[in-house]
Amino acid sequence: MKKIRIGLAGLGVVGKGVYDILKKDAKILSLKSQVELEIVATSARSKKDFLDPKIKFYSNAIDLANDHEIDVIVEVIGGTSLAKDLLESSIKNGKKFVTANKALLAEHGAEIAKLVEKYDGHIGFEASTAGANPIIKAFKESFTSGEITEFYAILNGTCNFILTKMSEENSDFAATLKEAQKLGYAESDPTLDIKGIDAAHKLTILAAIAGATKPAFQQLHIEGVDEISIEDISLADELGYKIKLLAIYKKLGDAVQQTLYPALVKKSEKIAQVDGPFNAILSNTSNASWNMMIGRGAGGLTTGSAIVADLIDIACERKSPLFGVKFEQLREAKIAPISARVGRYFLKLVIDKNLAQKSNLAEKIFGGKIQVEQAIFKDRGEEILGGFLTDVQKESDLLETLKHLDPNLVKSAKFLRVEATGF
Amino acid sequence: MKKIRIGLAGLGVVGKGVYDILKKDAKILSLKSQVELEIVATSARSKKDFLDPKIKFYSNAIDLANDHEIDVIVEVIGGTSLAKDLLESSIKNGKKFVTANKALLAEHGAEIAKLVEKYDGHIGFEASTAGANPIIKAFKESFTSGEITEFYAILNGTCNFILTKMSEENSDFAATLKEAQKLGYAESDPTLDIKGIDAAHKLTILAAIAGATKPAFQQLHIEGVDEISIEDISLADELGYKIKLLAIYKKLGDAVQQTLYPALVKKSEKIAQVDGPFNAILSNTSNASWNMMIGRGAGGLTTGSAIVADLIDIACERKSPLFGVKFEQLREAKIAPISARVGRYFLKLVIDKNLAQKSNLAEKIFGGKIQVEQAIFKDRGEEILGGFLTDVQKESDLLETLKHLDPNLVKSAKFLRVEATGF
Repeated sequence: MKKIRIGLAGLGVVGKGVYDILKKDAKILSLKSQVELEIVATSARSKKDFLDPKIKFYSNAIDLANDHEIDVIVEVIGGTSLAKDLLESSIKNGKKFVTANKALLAEHGAEIAKLVEKYDGHIGFEASTAGANPIIKAFKESFTSGEITEFYAILNGTCNFILTKMSEENSDFAATLKEAQKLGYAESDPTLDIKGIDAAHKLTILAAIAGATKPAFQQLHIEGVDEISIEDISLADELGYKIKLLAIYKKLGDAVQQTLYPALVKKSEKIAQVDGPFNAILSNTSNASWNMMIGRGAGGLTTGSAIVADLIDIACERKSPLFGVKFEQLREAKIAPISARVGRYFLKLVIDKNLAQKSNLAEKIFGGKIQVEQAIFKDRGEEILGGFLTDVQKESDLLETLKHLDPNLVKSAKFLRVEATGF
Repeated sequence: MKKIRIGLAGLGVVGKGVYDILKKDAKILSLKSQVELEIVATSARSKKDFLDPKIKFYSNAIDLANDHEIDVIVEVIGGTSLAKDLLESSIKNGKKFVTANKALLAEHGAEIAKLVEKYDGHIGFEASTAGANPIIKAFKESFTSGEITEFYAILNGTCNFILTKMSEENSDFAATLKEAQKLGYAESDPTLDIKGIDAAHKLTILAAIAGATKPAFQQLHIEGVDEISIEDISLADELGYKIKLLAIYKKLGDAVQQTLYPALVKKSEKIAQVDGPFNAILSNTSNASWNMMIGRGAGGLTTGSAIVADLIDIACERKSPLFGVKFEQLREAKIAPISARVGRYFLKLVIDKNLAQKSNLAEKIFGGKIQVEQAIFKDRGEEILGGFLTDVQKESDLLETLKHLDPNLVKSAKFLRVEATGF
């Protein structure tokens, strides 16, 4: 049986996942791939106990790219420096490449697409996005008969876990983050997750495939979950909504919305019901209408399993261009500015109780510039806490209105966006 | 640009869908496939108005297989006679083949797998199963890193539409079927749908891929929705359940459950919330855990879109063995008999009111052989209608118990199975 010799760069949780699957599932894998998938070398900052001593170990990942006994490199180092060098050397040396690295593809995707085409290479990256959901393959090879016109996605399990826990246990952000860290759902430095960077990387990749455009990470509007309070979640809940960190892609004529922010979604919507460490992608294609995928977002075996599926694709010689179309055909994405967003909003206002006449309060606050569709009020002694759902507004108009609220009447104002997928 | 010349057999709803997509989306399709996909000939019982007069028309589909100007046959005739002849002639003549025909693959899959391998052919059949869900590709090419250990699926949009409508409108089966026919969700002869045959065909295909076994349609236990009454649905509803026509695949040691029957599913489960004409597949793989896909089950453009995606795969030379592994490696499926099922049950009994003492009624009826976990009773004059949820029973034991109920006390008994996916 033909053998594919693998160099595994990185021996963290995902690296170990790949290592374990190739070992324990060798029989089923050769049944499906018609090859033997063998790890012949690895690299990491330090050698791990679980590693078979017969497998070569390099402390410098780049050595893998220069090892003539290796056919495919699996990169699970992460980051955009060493991983990028490794990718470039590997492709230039004629090795195929499988990676879970969303940052690398989101931030340097165009360059990489050009490189891989120049060298007639192959990069598998199913593991980069949405864990157990085979969404990269679906976008590149299944939803191909027309246009992907929009998608809404939950792409970061850590944030979804935190928002779910806050809501279920009525606990604040800081305490919930600590719990997530204890349970292994959040890193010790959670910045990339909670600031939305990780989800935005994944959004960038999916958007590039959906639109046949170059990845445009630097142009995305990104907000994380670290500003979401339990108060926001409770008010949303009473109004019939959940707060979800949503990656949104939406064709708007020539331009396209590519945004990542926490949004209110009606509890009856399917994407609002995706809780805990799960990821989901709800996509709309011009001919097949809606499709939704739900699955675990991360974990060693989950992510490892997407990597191994990519290895089987390599064994079976199935491939497609990096972002679904040839490099020369990738256009520049024309990203709509967030200020041009047109939609509904949730406003949380702290209102002076003495100045507030409860009847017609909304009119008094907004001076007719915002129609309120739903409102709730909480008495807080001298103040009233108000939660408002507005009619459809242009975001720049809303900001203008908020800027000119009477500061004696409204002590503070915060807004979140409301999204309706209709699914 | 390279051209792929298509022979389209069948000009019904799906045939027209394919025809329309290839026409209106030609630009995006050539972007993604790097070829021009052109219909050069069609066949049907009669020529249709929408057909471009420049396209060749055959009244005998087999002529397509003998036309040297055709590279790929798209078969949307349906059935297992003409379609089978067409498939065989096409493959033997070196033509690639794309089909939406679940009956053909479920009933003759092993033979076809052997044929296509002998001639080094290619058969795409994404359109055969679950409409807008790219589940064939996911099973064959994505969930490959381990074993698909179980799946639960809603595979017939007609039945799901009928069950949903009955529940929402409190209407009986016959009236709802008529409405479904009027809306185009059910055929004028609905037998294949309502008797569960269509869904069982699709189950057979998915099960063959999941287990790397030969399709075993003839051995499946199949029940449709035509015996489901509004009374069943109402009782289930009051107990907190919905009734769904579920395709179930479950590894049970050496054997495997492959069944198609209407089952009670708790309303809180995600698969219970898939309503109307939608299909869904909830699958569990040994490394990646659960994945769920939801999408429209049928329709000209929806099914057409899966066919066109297969054409693009052909253009890009992506392929995999018919059921995921080579023909010689497909094993015989060892189907567990339905009598060996172990699970919970819903019982609907009509009970004589005069003989029924309400306290301890379950004990009196079942003589301790069945523990009742939940029960509701409806007074119907001389009779009581009882809905019972049982503890875990072996199906053969349950049937034995039901056979020996006191006929004076229990006037009639009907059972349905209860399923819990835990997702």
